[in-house]
Amino acid sequence: MAGRTGAKVDQIICTVDVVLLTLKEDQLMVALLKRNREPYKNVLALPGGYIHAEDMDARDAALRVLKDKTGIDTPYLEQLATFSGPARDPRGWSVSIAYYALVSIDVIEKSGHPDVALKSVDQPLNLPFDHKTIVDTAVARLRSKSQYSSLPCYLAGENFTLPQLQRVYEVLMGESLNKVSFRRKMTEMDMLEPVEGAFTSTGAHRPAQLYQLKPEFRRQLTLLERGL
Amino acid sequence: MAGRTGAKVDQIICTVDVVLLTLKEDQLMVALLKRNREPYKNVLALPGGYIHAEDMDARDAALRVLKDKTGIDTPYLEQLATFSGPARDPRGWSVSIAYYALVSIDVIEKSGHPDVALKSVDQPLNLPFDHKTIVDTAVARLRSKSQYSSLPCYLAGENFTLPQLQRVYEVLMGESLNKVSFRRKMTEMDMLEPVEGAFTSTGAHRPAQLYQLKPEFRRQLTLLERGL
Repeated sequence: MAGRTGAKVDQIICTVDVVLLTLKEDQLMVALLKRNREPYKNVLALPGGYIHAEDMDARDAALRVLKDKTGIDTPYLEQLATFSGPARDPRGWSVSIAYYALVSIDVIEKSGHPDVALKSVDQPLNLPFDHKTIVDTAVARLRSKSQYSSLPCYLAGENFTLPQLQRVYEVLMGESLNKVSFRRKMTEMDMLEPVEGAFTSTGAHRPAQLYQLKPEFRRQLTLLERGL
Repeated sequence: MAGRTGAKVDQIICTVDVVLLTLKEDQLMVALLKRNREPYKNVLALPGGYIHAEDMDARDAALRVLKDKTGIDTPYLEQLATFSGPARDPRGWSVSIAYYALVSIDVIEKSGHPDVALKSVDQPLNLPFDHKTIVDTAVARLRSKSQYSSLPCYLAGENFTLPQLQRVYEVLMGESLNKVSFRRKMTEMDMLEPVEGAFTSTGAHRPAQLYQLKPEFRRQLTLLERGL
């Protein structure tokens, strides 16, 4: 590379893209939208868009794009990585600053956006640009972080029982967890509180206490010293 | 944010910046260069530059910029995060795709680049743009990853004794480590090999075996299941 005498790319296409993940029937799903313009018009892709002059930063642009295109306000959105190159977009040298967001399936269903398509990340996904790589990177990040953080809680909905939360962790980590040790870790993270007077009533079972994230953890991760 | 009717930023300033870190006399140092153009001409800042048409991606641009501006080929360079906003650069809405790289002090000294200034990251640094935030983010990432990866080895030089390597880990983690448990972790990561017939000869001490990273780990991290 030494001695390359190249010229600056005059106009880089700079966008934000959002990998919105949710759990539906124990499947990790990604939210896709049909593109409303070329290239790849009418093809399912990640929600994304250009940065606007009034965005405070790329994160702000990602939140705006997600809200505008899917109706969803997400409590948790984090920068994933930036993907770039001369060939990933047919229009020219491009940069996508990618974010990932986690919401429970309730949030997607309540938003009632008719165009949001949920696809399992474990099925083959045929996506334009390098969106498949972006999705794979987000899923790997989520699965790895699930081992030592509160991240999976964002997929569990507003209220959940401890067995429901354990199931979310198990789906993300791809393994069964010991109930006693799972509960000890949740106590250690100190991020849950019981919802006063709220219990499930599920037929034959004893009613189970419902929990929620403590307010200070609803928009901020907590980490475990040692993994689950 | 809903209902904002902004317009796309026509020309975003898109650059790469590199946080090159090294250890000198048990101090973590960052490599800075005097800027050769406005804004902030002659002010010490991170090595950085524009993306060129022939760069394969932003990582390739970062490696080229580092080589051109400091003479250094780094074995380890990783994307840190992307920093963005309308006010971080006086020229307008800008994006910096930031990378961090680690080299031993020998590599910097051998490159013999007269303009590279090394500054301790633990002293107040007065840097232009948001370069202070970028440096702080890189240092936090390095310190956090040091607990469970081979990352510190890239600061230890080509050959090192186990006590020297332990000292590098200790400086990065800011704590003393137990010698027996440190050696067990190094064995577990299985990334070191003795350099045949190479020993230190340091005065009164018994000669100590020199080690190096196994070839497969020289450009790729290895991780511990559990931290040090």
